[in-house]
Amino acid sequence: METTTVKAFAAEAADKALKQVEIKRRVATETDIEIEILYCGVCHSDLHTARNDWGGTVYPAVPGHEIVGKVTKVGDKVTKLKVGDFAAVGCMVDSCRTCSSCLDDLEQYCENGFSGTYNGQDKHLGGKTFGGYSEKVVVDEHFVLKVPANLDLAATAPLLCAGITTWSPLRHWNVGKGSKVAVIGLGGLGHMAIKLAKGLGADVTLFSRSTSKEQDALDLGADKVIISTDEEQMKSVKSRFDVIIDTVPYIHDVNPYIATLNTNGTLVLVGYLGGLDPILNTVPMIMGRKSVAGSLIGGIAETQEMLDFCGEHNIVSEIEIIKMQEINEAYERMLKSDVKYRFVIDMASLKN
Amino acid sequence: METTTVKAFAAEAADKALKQVEIKRRVATETDIEIEILYCGVCHSDLHTARNDWGGTVYPAVPGHEIVGKVTKVGDKVTKLKVGDFAAVGCMVDSCRTCSSCLDDLEQYCENGFSGTYNGQDKHLGGKTFGGYSEKVVVDEHFVLKVPANLDLAATAPLLCAGITTWSPLRHWNVGKGSKVAVIGLGGLGHMAIKLAKGLGADVTLFSRSTSKEQDALDLGADKVIISTDEEQMKSVKSRFDVIIDTVPYIHDVNPYIATLNTNGTLVLVGYLGGLDPILNTVPMIMGRKSVAGSLIGGIAETQEMLDFCGEHNIVSEIEIIKMQEINEAYERMLKSDVKYRFVIDMASLKN
Repeated sequence: METTTVKAFAAEAADKALKQVEIKRRVATETDIEIEILYCGVCHSDLHTARNDWGGTVYPAVPGHEIVGKVTKVGDKVTKLKVGDFAAVGCMVDSCRTCSSCLDDLEQYCENGFSGTYNGQDKHLGGKTFGGYSEKVVVDEHFVLKVPANLDLAATAPLLCAGITTWSPLRHWNVGKGSKVAVIGLGGLGHMAIKLAKGLGADVTLFSRSTSKEQDALDLGADKVIISTDEEQMKSVKSRFDVIIDTVPYIHDVNPYIATLNTNGTLVLVGYLGGLDPILNTVPMIMGRKSVAGSLIGGIAETQEMLDFCGEHNIVSEIEIIKMQEINEAYERMLKSDVKYRFVIDMASLKN
Repeated sequence: METTTVKAFAAEAADKALKQVEIKRRVATETDIEIEILYCGVCHSDLHTARNDWGGTVYPAVPGHEIVGKVTKVGDKVTKLKVGDFAAVGCMVDSCRTCSSCLDDLEQYCENGFSGTYNGQDKHLGGKTFGGYSEKVVVDEHFVLKVPANLDLAATAPLLCAGITTWSPLRHWNVGKGSKVAVIGLGGLGHMAIKLAKGLGADVTLFSRSTSKEQDALDLGADKVIISTDEEQMKSVKSRFDVIIDTVPYIHDVNPYIATLNTNGTLVLVGYLGGLDPILNTVPMIMGRKSVAGSLIGGIAETQEMLDFCGEHNIVSEIEIIKMQEINEAYERMLKSDVKYRFVIDMASLKN
């Protein structure tokens, strides 16, 4: 298969800093779109993959799945976008397109496994896919999104992962005008959950462990902040919420939050992969028909719906722009939660 | 308040056998229905309450919340039933009727707590309510159900708890024609779950730990039996079910069953009150938008819907009829799972 060579930033081992490398991209096939990457958001998954925290990383690894750019080439059969249009790519670049999940626009639950934008299966060139820390990316048009013209491009990038990951459960569990929603954790995902739930018309509460985030949450649109370590405050929201979006990425006790769900309420885990320890108590779940669920990113049609919604409501992420060469320092700051709320790489820096 | 005295069977202490006593019933108020109890099903909760397994039992305790009988008196304002009609009472005899759960026909989730049919709050006479192991019961008409004329009265009794407890989640999670449903455990609840899910048009699988229940499950209408201790059989139903009704009343590992849920599937706990140990792994939940939920009995309107459905589909419980005086022996047999699938007391025996 014909390829071109482009500059990228890659981890070459779990314990090595990311550095500039060259990678190959396929030449666009008839259904592909080639995108010059302008901005790429920095997700915690980037760091986990670069450092092989989850196992399974193949090196060199080029992270990045919050991609916004400009179309530079389209295949003959492409109808979605044309050269010069702004385009976006999220966490997926391929799936089987034939299983019942794919046919239901739920590519993220593809029964044969979707191809992640990085460290996923590259069905064209073999080996692993390379992500958005690079000059260009070539993606089948089905997995390319349109960017609303009015949105700031850099601040749009994080919508492709942090945005859709919180949007999908809000929509699936029918959040709308008058819904009572709580968000646990104020990071990249949490701040988007607040903005999107507010955009949908919900009454939004942030659960936080520290008072330091209170004003920020209110500024982002939260109606209320509950300090989760304060028992009195927790009691004040007993049986209140229809949906709780739990963005906490590390092990934590969900039982105190179950008590704040209303009858028929659902707590949706979007951040934590692992065992629920301390153990989940079924009594309040049975006594109030409450659910604990998980949710993974979102489908392609749903991602476009979210972008269009953000265009209409002028919703973007809060970001700090960095240069590609600053990525290793940015990872260290992310580990200390020292970012409000997402780093976005200005990919022009890679050209210099 | 005016009362009458009726015969009943009561536990007078956690470690004492049940024996005949006399209790007081209020004289029917204008919205009450007085019922001569003909049959009363024997639920595991009866035994747990008699023996104070959950704490909170007030003695003497008269169990029984699967009540079928004949109307002997009605208050002036009663419109639902008339003297001579067959009537039924389930797990609830009162609730606040004003909270949002009650207004939504979800009295079982009454925000102010419903009054259980036994060991519940008696708002008329004070103290605790007395259940169906008695000659008569007096209940507000809102909490009295109509019994379809074609159903066997004795075999209808268990529908009032075992039936509605499995019907409510089947309906809430939209089980219908073509749904793939699994039931964990073949006891009082499990055998009703199979019959009701089949009635709703679902494809029904029983999970059981032993091959001994296989033929029984098929006879009850199950399409398939999976032996849960057989890894190959468990693999054969990977990602298969839309809804799993988990009737197991003791601590057990739900993780192997999560693997058998389809995308968007829900495992509903109706039998086990306690901590989920071994701990629940969130990874398969997130990777397939799967839920774990709890569900408690069902609302009054929903209970009537279930009874009407059973009338139309000629569905009743499989029972073994006993005399009131055999209750202590029946409890011992229940502890050994030596019943197919529900004991029902012929209350005529109490008159002798």
